[in-house]
Amino acid sequence: MKIRVNIQLKAGVLDPQGKAVHHALSSLGFNEVADVRVGKQILLDIDESDVTKAKARVTDMCEELLANTVIENYEIEIL
Amino acid sequence: MKIRVNIQLKAGVLDPQGKAVHHALSSLGFNEVADVRVGKQILLDIDESDVTKAKARVTDMCEELLANTVIENYEIEIL
Repeated sequence: MKIRVNIQLKAGVLDPQGKAVHHALSSLGFNEVADVRVGKQILLDIDESDVTKAKARVTDMCEELLANTVIENYEIEIL
Repeated sequence: MKIRVNIQLKAGVLDPQGKAVHHALSSLGFNEVADVRVGKQILLDIDESDVTKAKARVTDMCEELLANTVIENYEIEIL
């Protein structure tokens, strides 16, 4: 089963990488951009056919390793 | 308009970060994980109400700055 984990900084947490990308886009003439946030995306291929069990396991993975839950939010998507 | 750009290494391109995460997950006992690929996710907030125009502009941003199209694939999602 393929699962995608989207990890983004929480609202209010400063995102210097996003700011840098925003600035670079503006210098290239993309002035319609109002905000940029940069996050991570982890694609997992898991040997588990039960969706509920797989989601529970991936939640554990996020809590233990993949996301820093103090400053990041994560979202699990079954593909 | 909120737009999400998903950037992943192309198939066949070595992903050392993914390998490291895979290894770490295995050491934590998550042995059902068969493969891990780590990518980027960029959330853009754009002052443009026309979906077709917005997509075209974001495609230009990806080609010019956001993605390295030699080794990365990108995917544009309207949120």
